[in-house]
Amino acid sequence: MRELLGGKGANLAEMNLIGVPVPPGFTITTEVCNEYYIHGKDKVTETIIDEVRDAMHRVEAAVGGAKFADNDNPLLVSVRSGARASMPGMMDTILNLGLNDHAVEVIAKKSGNPRFAWDSYRRFVQMYGDVVLGLKPENKEAKDPFEEIIDEIKKEKRVALDTELSADDLKELVTRFKTVVREKTGNDFPTDPWQQLWGAVMAVFDSWMNDRAILYRKLNKIPQEWGTAVNVQAMVFGNMGEKSATGVAFTRDAATGENIFNGEYLINAQGEDVVAGIRTPQQITLEGSRRWAKLQDISEEKRKAEAPSLEETMPEAYNDLMELQQKLEDHYRDMQDLEFTIQDGKLWMLQTRNAKRTGAAAVRVAMEMLNQGILKEDEAVLRVEPEKIDELLHPVFDLEDLHKVTVVTKGLPASPGAASGQIVFFAEDAELRHKEDSETQLILVRIETSPEDLRGMNVAQGILTARGGMTSHAAVVARGMGKCCVSGANGLNIDYKQRIMTVNGKQYREGEWISLNGSTGEVYEGKVKTKPAEPGDDFKKLMELAGRYAHLQVRANADTPEDAATARRFGAEGIGLCRTEHMFFKEDKIIPMREMILAETTEDRRKALDKLLPLQQKDFEEIFAVMHDLPVIVRLLDPPLHEFLPHNDRGQEEMSQVMNVPVRIIRHKVESLHETNPMLGHRGCRLANTYPEITEMQTRAVLQAVLTLKKKGINSIPEIMVPLTGILYEMKFQEEIIRTTAEKVFLEMGDRIEYKIGSMIEVPRAALTADRIAESAEFFSFGTNDLTQLTYGYSRDDISKFLPIYLDKGILKTDPFQVLDRKGVGQLISMAALKGRTVRPLLKVGICGEHGGEPSSVEFCHTVGLNYVSCSPYRVPVARLAAAQAAIKSKK
Amino acid sequence: MRELLGGKGANLAEMNLIGVPVPPGFTITTEVCNEYYIHGKDKVTETIIDEVRDAMHRVEAAVGGAKFADNDNPLLVSVRSGARASMPGMMDTILNLGLNDHAVEVIAKKSGNPRFAWDSYRRFVQMYGDVVLGLKPENKEAKDPFEEIIDEIKKEKRVALDTELSADDLKELVTRFKTVVREKTGNDFPTDPWQQLWGAVMAVFDSWMNDRAILYRKLNKIPQEWGTAVNVQAMVFGNMGEKSATGVAFTRDAATGENIFNGEYLINAQGEDVVAGIRTPQQITLEGSRRWAKLQDISEEKRKAEAPSLEETMPEAYNDLMELQQKLEDHYRDMQDLEFTIQDGKLWMLQTRNAKRTGAAAVRVAMEMLNQGILKEDEAVLRVEPEKIDELLHPVFDLEDLHKVTVVTKGLPASPGAASGQIVFFAEDAELRHKEDSETQLILVRIETSPEDLRGMNVAQGILTARGGMTSHAAVVARGMGKCCVSGANGLNIDYKQRIMTVNGKQYREGEWISLNGSTGEVYEGKVKTKPAEPGDDFKKLMELAGRYAHLQVRANADTPEDAATARRFGAEGIGLCRTEHMFFKEDKIIPMREMILAETTEDRRKALDKLLPLQQKDFEEIFAVMHDLPVIVRLLDPPLHEFLPHNDRGQEEMSQVMNVPVRIIRHKVESLHETNPMLGHRGCRLANTYPEITEMQTRAVLQAVLTLKKKGINSIPEIMVPLTGILYEMKFQEEIIRTTAEKVFLEMGDRIEYKIGSMIEVPRAALTADRIAESAEFFSFGTNDLTQLTYGYSRDDISKFLPIYLDKGILKTDPFQVLDRKGVGQLISMAALKGRTVRPLLKVGICGEHGGEPSSVEFCHTVGLNYVSCSPYRVPVARLAAAQAAIKSKK
Repeated sequence: MRELLGGKGANLAEMNLIGVPVPPGFTITTEVCNEYYIHGKDKVTETIIDEVRDAMHRVEAAVGGAKFADNDNPLLVSVRSGARASMPGMMDTILNLGLNDHAVEVIAKKSGNPRFAWDSYRRFVQMYGDVVLGLKPENKEAKDPFEEIIDEIKKEKRVALDTELSADDLKELVTRFKTVVREKTGNDFPTDPWQQLWGAVMAVFDSWMNDRAILYRKLNKIPQEWGTAVNVQAMVFGNMGEKSATGVAFTRDAATGENIFNGEYLINAQGEDVVAGIRTPQQITLEGSRRWAKLQDISEEKRKAEAPSLEETMPEAYNDLMELQQKLEDHYRDMQDLEFTIQDGKLWMLQTRNAKRTGAAAVRVAMEMLNQGILKEDEAVLRVEPEKIDELLHPVFDLEDLHKVTVVTKGLPASPGAASGQIVFFAEDAELRHKEDSETQLILVRIETSPEDLRGMNVAQGILTARGGMTSHAAVVARGMGKCCVSGANGLNIDYKQRIMTVNGKQYREGEWISLNGSTGEVYEGKVKTKPAEPGDDFKKLMELAGRYAHLQVRANADTPEDAATARRFGAEGIGLCRTEHMFFKEDKIIPMREMILAETTEDRRKALDKLLPLQQKDFEEIFAVMHDLPVIVRLLDPPLHEFLPHNDRGQEEMSQVMNVPVRIIRHKVESLHETNPMLGHRGCRLANTYPEITEMQTRAVLQAVLTLKKKGINSIPEIMVPLTGILYEMKFQEEIIRTTAEKVFLEMGDRIEYKIGSMIEVPRAALTADRIAESAEFFSFGTNDLTQLTYGYSRDDISKFLPIYLDKGILKTDPFQVLDRKGVGQLISMAALKGRTVRPLLKVGICGEHGGEPSSVEFCHTVGLNYVSCSPYRVPVARLAAAQAAIKSKK
Repeated sequence: MRELLGGKGANLAEMNLIGVPVPPGFTITTEVCNEYYIHGKDKVTETIIDEVRDAMHRVEAAVGGAKFADNDNPLLVSVRSGARASMPGMMDTILNLGLNDHAVEVIAKKSGNPRFAWDSYRRFVQMYGDVVLGLKPENKEAKDPFEEIIDEIKKEKRVALDTELSADDLKELVTRFKTVVREKTGNDFPTDPWQQLWGAVMAVFDSWMNDRAILYRKLNKIPQEWGTAVNVQAMVFGNMGEKSATGVAFTRDAATGENIFNGEYLINAQGEDVVAGIRTPQQITLEGSRRWAKLQDISEEKRKAEAPSLEETMPEAYNDLMELQQKLEDHYRDMQDLEFTIQDGKLWMLQTRNAKRTGAAAVRVAMEMLNQGILKEDEAVLRVEPEKIDELLHPVFDLEDLHKVTVVTKGLPASPGAASGQIVFFAEDAELRHKEDSETQLILVRIETSPEDLRGMNVAQGILTARGGMTSHAAVVARGMGKCCVSGANGLNIDYKQRIMTVNGKQYREGEWISLNGSTGEVYEGKVKTKPAEPGDDFKKLMELAGRYAHLQVRANADTPEDAATARRFGAEGIGLCRTEHMFFKEDKIIPMREMILAETTEDRRKALDKLLPLQQKDFEEIFAVMHDLPVIVRLLDPPLHEFLPHNDRGQEEMSQVMNVPVRIIRHKVESLHETNPMLGHRGCRLANTYPEITEMQTRAVLQAVLTLKKKGINSIPEIMVPLTGILYEMKFQEEIIRTTAEKVFLEMGDRIEYKIGSMIEVPRAALTADRIAESAEFFSFGTNDLTQLTYGYSRDDISKFLPIYLDKGILKTDPFQVLDRKGVGQLISMAALKGRTVRPLLKVGICGEHGGEPSSVEFCHTVGLNYVSCSPYRVPVARLAAAQAAIKSKK
């Protein structure tokens, strides 16, 4: 019935239907809205006026006693808009409709709380004045006339807060409000509740066509013909005396998922008071209350006297609530978050919805509901938001401690987790500090990171950068390491010389403590306690189920044996991307690597490569050993060579000394390797086709490692990947080198093994000509980071300059580096998979960009028939769950 | 008959058929080659041996006298391979086959020239040894054994050149050659001419399957089954005495196209001698000879004595030649380039082919042949290579002067023409020098140029850069200005501080003269005379014809009234790209532009823009006035803002003083605008969507200019283009701003005009989602430079690092920034045009990148149904001709 009643109306109706006591009300359907736009206000009013009166009578009957527009016992109502989909920009809510100078006195008397009555009245006049009578200024910066009056009175009364105003002050407010209404509209504020109601209904209809709502519909492709419904509902009050109360409750524990009903309430209070924190709310259950007292170190006597449970204070209402919460959870088959009000001893449910919960709670609830027989297997798998289980795999802040901290600034939540440490600005210093004391906790703070910083990043607890987006170097590497990272914190000003970072005028020196929340992007001052990750049995069970349902294979991006081990532990079914360049930054390899770069002849280059060969072979042996019996995609050297040379004077002088090469030569090489747009430069197979001997060496290293392990009885499945191909012949030339080298190795070692050669599809041209590339490539791996960069023409290092504005204006719905862009990048991917398979029907196709661990992107990969996704080890569980859900959904 | 006879064999046969005396010969067909690969040598020899003997007898009969393998009067032959398409990597030619120790003596006697006889013999042994007997080393760096022997003998005889060796020395050479053959092959060099012949034929067949030929076929998709033919032809000698001669001739003047037969010959000489320049060749016609003597200041007597014409020395052979040249031109219906030999008074044609010619000659020949009725209109249009007519529009070097120069280094031929001038390293200095003396000739030498150098480039005669490709800033701007430019001269080392450029160790200081050949990329030392461009009437006639046949509209990329005027003069049918950013570099605009960039609030930005508005409006008025009644596409601001700020200390300090802003603020702004990959950064409509007020100002400037001109009775057709769109909403937001601003302007000025809003398609995503973009865009203009950059993932500023290697290895056939890549970029273009037109059937689609002036790219645009191409003004004639040819070809 959502089409007719809108979302809100339908929900209320559903609760009502299953016998949950909701405040009585009725819904004016979306059809009426459309009539309004065709025939106008008068005609529509005429058509429905009798039906509305009848409906109101039914509401009065249900409430029992109070009557709308009745001077002695006035029924107050709320009026809310309610479209099929929730829509910001439309009129939201008008409460307490039906109040006037007479009614307010009656309510004051009945509630015994004149301040409450007058406060409700002045709120109503303000809301109605703003929204229905149109007094709210369109320009956001202009002041609301009602707020101006409140400021006036506060000044006169010399008080700071609204809450300090007395009932008489509020009465005065209402008078002045009504004056301003008269002045601005030329009419008196309507005192007739029916006039108020029709005004509010029409205001809801009008709000369907205001600019913001139209824009929102445009952006979200919501047809204008849907229209909005109007919900009219009797007001109920939890603040009508000692037999009234209000509260919120969860059918299970939202933090842990434990199956225990819990919640808080306040006697003689309104909904907002519970969250506002002015009075301390009390626990609903006796058990909860006792637990709470124990934590607070409060005696049972004191607890009973000052903070008794609802179970104790209003046992009847409590029993009703217990019954209802079970009913609602059973009905919705999910943990519920309830809002209720007890008016004069009678329980009303104001709202129920699926409860927000932590990742741990989500997993536990789903698995317990599966055990309880409430959910079937596939339903249980669908029940956990994949993104959420990430929380189970990373350290988190101690919630208690977190309440005390000061947020210094905010960046992008680049890699989840929690970290506290002392500020350090240089990767080398971090290494040094770590060598001196391996227990030191450090936060590496950089403008941006580069591959030179790798080892420093590895010993730090967390990384904070001033520039760069969600897929900047820092972010990608940190996620790979499972290390907390906040990137692109624009507010940061870093002075490397002085070793000071400045935020909002405040300075933080090297050695001072800060903390990072990698899941929110927040940076805190000082030290905050963290808790380690603890996945547990429910998690294992869920992953097992996911494995059974998923069609997509999930691999990991891993460059070290440690990463590979983590990946395997998390259930990775292979390595989808083993970058070989990170290996070259290790101390024993950077020197021959640099020799190779400085070489002026093929011979000299070969000499340097000969030194690298045994070192790289050893790297591969270690990784293949961990990944035995699972496929490993090794990507040939990808980054531009200048990344392996130091760019500052100090580094160049050091290199000059270590290598015994004049610093002039090094500088000249760095200059000659300089590129205006390094992202579009001499890298990937462009390097390998310039210096084929690099591919020869790397092929040797891979295959010699595999054959060496084979002798020890360890089975490896190597897949060699050529990066950045865009032209068939780039691939063919590489294939030729690899195959020729392989045959030599097989001959030399007297044994041979199976291996595959594939292409990394990351430039649009590769996707467009995939039917050609597939002539040579046995598998495709989409590098979705670069493919996104090139398809949009965005540099992920620079995107922070306009991405926030694009997201804000709705030009982009999501960051395309986080959520795969289906229309553009996705089109290339599905086109390439299709074209590739026309030539090679069994072509294996997967993605290995950052998107491989993002649920919506994983779903897309499933939809277009890819074979696997590959993501950082810590994202493997997320990807597996997302893959399972995609498979289950597409089956349905 | 090409399939059977191969290219060469078919040509020879054709000449023979029309009665041209070619040295008699026969062709062994491609079928035999295939038989060879199926059945092997022996079987094939057996099959054709009788036929070959018969054919040889017919050759003997035709020659009259000499007989193959006859000791007394030996017939010598040449053996050549000849596939359907010319194929490097295959065996080319063996001359003088049939020689042995006996025959050489006969020839020596008959020719009266023992040295010639022995030289022919030693050449034959070497060629046969290398190619047929396989003594040529496969490794290119290894030395040919025959060359080693030549070096030996030269040392012994203490001479430097082969030509200094006597007949006896050559005799000795042959002996030693034969010894090495015996040593290396174990057999004596074959003395039996028949054995020699069969060896050569099989060697041709074998060369069809050598590695280089296989690779070439692979790259060029030539099927292996085509096979190669073998041409056996009698040798004729122009050096058999005073009644023999050899020469080359043109049926018309290859430099000017004048319809006058001309050429050179040498008595008693071989083909190579004419070109080798050891003896001065004589003119063929009497008229030519007299003209030549006049130029050389030689008296008629001396001419007659020392260098008489063929017309005088051998009038009969001359008459035969005159007749033949006319016959051949008539037959091939094009100007011919002939090679002939006169042996003992008898004329033999060795080769005829369509003559290479200058652009001017091409145009004149085509138009005159049209007037003569030899060619029809469409044939005449097809006859001129579009690329060639570029020569008519730019100054060229005086050919006489050019022979004397030294080539210093070579870069890319970035913008055609010729220029001489004094070296200047800074644009500002160039401006100063030009102010002091507007006649000064300058060459601006830079590592690379940036928009700041514009004015300096404008006053220089030519531009030379050390970095950057064919579409670097320098190249694009220079072509736009029609100014000579050599870019990416990697050999250049520029020291700005010392004001010295170093090439190959030699230094050139500021003020020294150099010259640039923009059509070849050569850089010369010193001053070289240039001649201005002179298109002439034939050119006009050709352009008129082109205009009648072309379907594609040709527009120009022009940013100034001067460019626009040039474009219009060359027949541009509108402006396809008016970049607005270049305007901002003018003195009066750079300051408010910088104010805008430094502005921290929208208000301040608006203030600066208000200052720019009247200035920019004036620019547009001037351009629209020139382009009255033709459409002008104005592109909104495109480059990243940092391009408008000075990047060096000096510039920043100057700016600080001029604008009265602390240098610290300027530096901070420059830093904050810094981007890792500026090509992928904050530019195009990303800027305009960040600062919509820029679009407002530019829209105002365009439309106010149009309405102002309208009052003066001048009609403009403005088309506003949004650059770098990739997302529908980027376009929609801009469209909204433009339309709203337009309505305001129309209201203010009390008048309205028609205008279009379009999208520049330059990021792949725009092409992929063109059906969406077309919802908002009324026209598409493909920015093929950027589209190529992003489709390949190449930065045109950095591509010189690997492009030469890719071209060399055949990974790329052509530079995709010069010739549009049809498979990748072209696929996106045709996809986008198709998708766009499904939504908006009358969508106007064109390209405005550098490809718009490149013939093969223009042809592609015609093929996929675009509406127009736009190129720099000086390329407009090229594009128009290419468009006409594409239309004519597709009709056929």
